[in-house]
Amino acid sequence: MSDPSPESDAPVERSDPELFDKIVNLTKRRGFVYPSAEIYGGFRSTYDYGPLGVLLLRNVKDAWWRSMVQERGDVVGLDASILSPPAVWEASGHLSNFTDPLVDCTNCKNRFRLDKLEDPEQCPSCGQRGTFTEPRQFNLMFETQAGPVKDASATAYLRPETAQGMFINFKNVIDTTRVRPPFGIAQIGKSFRNEITPGQFVFRTREFEQMEMEYFCHPDDAQKYYEYWCEHRYRWYIDHGMPEDRLRLRPHDDDELSHYSSGTSDVEYLFPWGWDELEGIANRGDFDLRQHAEHSGEKLEWYDQAANERWTPHVIEPAAGATRTAMAFLMAAYDEEEVRGETRVVLRFHPTIAPYKVAVLPLSKKPELSGPANELASELRKRFMCDYDETQSIGRRYRRQDELGTPFCVTYDFDSLEDSAVTVRDRDSMEQQRIPLEGVAAYLAERLH
Amino acid sequence: MSDPSPESDAPVERSDPELFDKIVNLTKRRGFVYPSAEIYGGFRSTYDYGPLGVLLLRNVKDAWWRSMVQERGDVVGLDASILSPPAVWEASGHLSNFTDPLVDCTNCKNRFRLDKLEDPEQCPSCGQRGTFTEPRQFNLMFETQAGPVKDASATAYLRPETAQGMFINFKNVIDTTRVRPPFGIAQIGKSFRNEITPGQFVFRTREFEQMEMEYFCHPDDAQKYYEYWCEHRYRWYIDHGMPEDRLRLRPHDDDELSHYSSGTSDVEYLFPWGWDELEGIANRGDFDLRQHAEHSGEKLEWYDQAANERWTPHVIEPAAGATRTAMAFLMAAYDEEEVRGETRVVLRFHPTIAPYKVAVLPLSKKPELSGPANELASELRKRFMCDYDETQSIGRRYRRQDELGTPFCVTYDFDSLEDSAVTVRDRDSMEQQRIPLEGVAAYLAERLH
Repeated sequence: MSDPSPESDAPVERSDPELFDKIVNLTKRRGFVYPSAEIYGGFRSTYDYGPLGVLLLRNVKDAWWRSMVQERGDVVGLDASILSPPAVWEASGHLSNFTDPLVDCTNCKNRFRLDKLEDPEQCPSCGQRGTFTEPRQFNLMFETQAGPVKDASATAYLRPETAQGMFINFKNVIDTTRVRPPFGIAQIGKSFRNEITPGQFVFRTREFEQMEMEYFCHPDDAQKYYEYWCEHRYRWYIDHGMPEDRLRLRPHDDDELSHYSSGTSDVEYLFPWGWDELEGIANRGDFDLRQHAEHSGEKLEWYDQAANERWTPHVIEPAAGATRTAMAFLMAAYDEEEVRGETRVVLRFHPTIAPYKVAVLPLSKKPELSGPANELASELRKRFMCDYDETQSIGRRYRRQDELGTPFCVTYDFDSLEDSAVTVRDRDSMEQQRIPLEGVAAYLAERLH
Repeated sequence: MSDPSPESDAPVERSDPELFDKIVNLTKRRGFVYPSAEIYGGFRSTYDYGPLGVLLLRNVKDAWWRSMVQERGDVVGLDASILSPPAVWEASGHLSNFTDPLVDCTNCKNRFRLDKLEDPEQCPSCGQRGTFTEPRQFNLMFETQAGPVKDASATAYLRPETAQGMFINFKNVIDTTRVRPPFGIAQIGKSFRNEITPGQFVFRTREFEQMEMEYFCHPDDAQKYYEYWCEHRYRWYIDHGMPEDRLRLRPHDDDELSHYSSGTSDVEYLFPWGWDELEGIANRGDFDLRQHAEHSGEKLEWYDQAANERWTPHVIEPAAGATRTAMAFLMAAYDEEEVRGETRVVLRFHPTIAPYKVAVLPLSKKPELSGPANELASELRKRFMCDYDETQSIGRRYRRQDELGTPFCVTYDFDSLEDSAVTVRDRDSMEQQRIPLEGVAAYLAERLH
């Protein structure tokens, strides 16, 4: 994700526009994703995450943070600013290289990305040939002004990636914590790219969220850790429910590699439009630290006291897109099956990823059931995201929770008043079990990880 | 935080620049906060949160989310985009009213905020009188362009508050979830204001993070819920360790109120420069929904089927600054005391807010101690953010953890090899207890909430 050249398009190996439409429709209908500013007609491929989407996105980011920061002794976190001065992007190369070639049609005045045109001579809008201007390089960074005076010193860019935040804080982190190589700095946050051709729903948007980590190690160890992180990151998706036949780790061909990278692999998911990137793991060498050292005049090195040696660490970068990963988990979870002559739509999320972990459903709205059912929901909310629903038939409520991907439904019925027990229904098998009220939280906790 | 007029300055009741400097120094030295792009000279009052700061900030936001979303049945979450079209801010009033009056000195060419000048006639920079231009209104929203063509339709603003995301998604949320009034929509996220005079460290910055909730209720219930949320929000700070003598709930005077608000109270913390705002709780009436209904042409109402009534909900808005709240928790936690003739600096964070919950410290670096100590740390990391430190004397390592605010230190010593037990040291009392290794996680879990 941090390569300052435009991302390449993945080859299409599976095209299923009908499935794609169904999933996009479900995300809107069930409160996962809304077009931004929809009541004003939307705005330029930006999206808002609704009540279900924000939970899904949080779960994906929290699972990443847990795996990449909390559970490790060698990675620390960071949260750097989005607004940043030109000096950072001059050093990183983004100011000069993070561009797409644009042409204008002199006949119909439309503007196109040259490298995306099927026929670079013929305008796809008005059909004329030979009407394009010479291509010019369009920088993908969003520009704004910070401060009351609009001079050059006020120019700010919205970061196009979170990675540079780690490089420019390398010295701060080694000076103020106890890390020593090999160690990583990890960050989750929004980035902005003024894409000419956003698209595929939330897959390529101008505003998006990243989960990036820079792992600093001795040059001799770079290849070893590159392989380690490729394996580790691939495993993370599998461990959170991605099916192996729709996930692959694809090493870049030599002609795809950046000039400074001695190895890059993409974790790719088989989207309805084909294999496409969720994450890139790159062996970036010492390119970034050297660039910033040169431009800032600061020494960005490691001094090994024991060996009395100074060296510039090499960097392995696993860089994932949080929003597209959330969407891939949703697509991977999507399933339809025939149940008693009807189609059941179910999101088979891994419990860690599922937005709600449990829903409490009183069999009827009557206070003698809704009262204790509400009490149970309050109790469960101390430990889990818990939905509560008392409208419509129990069958329709089960189907609704299936579409939200809720692993368990707990039904409080009239028998519950007698036996102090509830029915727990499993999302995937639809099997039901009678569980004593006081054992419900423990029953769920055991199955929700 | 969502009032489109500039925030008023709080009266100074306690000024302690020395304490302030000490705390700012500690935040840098211990990896809480770094100036953004520091190796390039910093950038316009933006800050990065380092390894400790990002944990502190996450804990504050997670505690808010837990209290405002997870533990409630009547509030759902949202994550709306930062980029937004002019139509939203035209309806909200920000395009015309979210401004500061600026004057230029025609002599020295400096620019000032008129309402902040001690003497509105005399330039504080060059000392001349009567050299100011007529004031002009400067809009505090950051502007940028989305898309390849720089025309009016490409104009985008970085949101100056998260609140409008909830109002413009009101209809989406009621159409796609089971909420019904009274209910809330909550959001955590970054906002941007092009402040003329940022300052007080991270207290007023151009980029900051908010935690806002809009609670939609029947007009007749608005006053009741306004009082409920004032009490609830004040209590949240106290419950997470704010001392009562440095926190107050201050109702706005009539002349501070927005024209549409029938009541606003601020939760204020006694900062080193005086009482200042952490959060505003406002009874906003139906102003926002009516504005957006009028400008968008959408019906933003609630239809009560049972009563066959349509009405526009009134809104109670508890709107907190996440970054300034994190800083207030840090300042409130700061303490110094004399211990054996030396000054001990300790951050007495509430366990929920503390960045690390525990640190594992082998008495020596020798492998027979560091091996099992590392194993213990790995075990604890499954449940807690856990630091590990094997350098320097144990006394210095305790002091370092005190400055990070870590509630417990676990020391693995040579006796541990014999008795399979460790010493657990309490941050606040400095008391030490011998605990069997297999009981450490449970011992900590019991004390860390």
